[in-house]
Amino acid sequence: MPVSPFPDDAQRQASREAKRKAVLLAAVRMFNARGFHATSLDDVAASLGISKPTIYHYLGTKDQVLLECVTFGLHQLLEAAETARRQPGTGLARLRTFLISYARVNMEDFGRCVIRTGEEMLSPESAERFRDLKREIDAALRALIREAVADGSMVPVDERIAAFTFAGALNWPARWFDPDGPESAQATAEHMVDLLIAGCTPR
Amino acid sequence: MPVSPFPDDAQRQASREAKRKAVLLAAVRMFNARGFHATSLDDVAASLGISKPTIYHYLGTKDQVLLECVTFGLHQLLEAAETARRQPGTGLARLRTFLISYARVNMEDFGRCVIRTGEEMLSPESAERFRDLKREIDAALRALIREAVADGSMVPVDERIAAFTFAGALNWPARWFDPDGPESAQATAEHMVDLLIAGCTPR
Repeated sequence: MPVSPFPDDAQRQASREAKRKAVLLAAVRMFNARGFHATSLDDVAASLGISKPTIYHYLGTKDQVLLECVTFGLHQLLEAAETARRQPGTGLARLRTFLISYARVNMEDFGRCVIRTGEEMLSPESAERFRDLKREIDAALRALIREAVADGSMVPVDERIAAFTFAGALNWPARWFDPDGPESAQATAEHMVDLLIAGCTPR
Repeated sequence: MPVSPFPDDAQRQASREAKRKAVLLAAVRMFNARGFHATSLDDVAASLGISKPTIYHYLGTKDQVLLECVTFGLHQLLEAAETARRQPGTGLARLRTFLISYARVNMEDFGRCVIRTGEEMLSPESAERFRDLKREIDAALRALIREAVADGSMVPVDERIAAFTFAGALNWPARWFDPDGPESAQATAEHMVDLLIAGCTPR
């Protein structure tokens, strides 16, 4: 049988998915570099040599594109929490694994976009979806803290304050981390997390 | 001598300063609530029952208004560092005092605006001024960390990573702290800072 030059359903689906991801990546990088408001979908389209209607076709309006970007980043964070919770070891070891992955996501394109996006940039419906996903991450982080306290590997802490403190410290690399800086992303993430865990008073 | 109904120079100066501050406060609150891009100076003017040219008169263009807002917040942070450095006690006690004030500023109008403002929102000249002031705060924080390590009240840490970790943790309340929440601003700030200092591993 000769190979058909016409794509089958699976090939069409894969091609569509690859195109969608390329558009999403071009958009998130431009949002991060220029700011959401200063970026037009025309610019994103031009950077890929396509037209704005093509972007609408794959992702929708500019608000929907931003929602897709932050959703992608928030899913990376949720996956990191699930992976960490399946690890063996103490509760604190699992929390540490999650926090390191959390920091690393925030140093990358989609995580940076999550941190740089204020709810006021999104439409009310998209902002609600954004808030819901952030609440899921917060709940996952609090559960990991609770488990670490429960098995005695972590001192008792106020779960809410600890979650906000850790998250804030590890959100901020979205603004300052420079991949060309003195330390790798992994080393920087471990360094920050170990400081949070150990504190800084002499023992 | 009858009291003159005409203001003298000092009164004119004080009145001008009070008006300037009122405009700045109205602007920063609207930027924080709606986002910078969604706020027009017409809205700010309307909220004070004045005209847009009056705002131009006191503060300048929208870019200059935002720069004034973040400068005000950054000066509050710099003053907090100077006050903390004049305190008696160990280096760690001084660092703790600064970090608590730092968190508190970020829970208030101008500090919130500093944290919510990305450099890409400002004109290139204003962004440079913003960056310079942020560098001053970072330098002040690093100096306090260095002094705490030098007098042995703090374990040796990487000054750069520690400064970014502490700052990130205490910047984030600009996004989540709710003055109507379960804990006061002061208690929340102390709670976070003591967690950062003590860490969370059992001793």
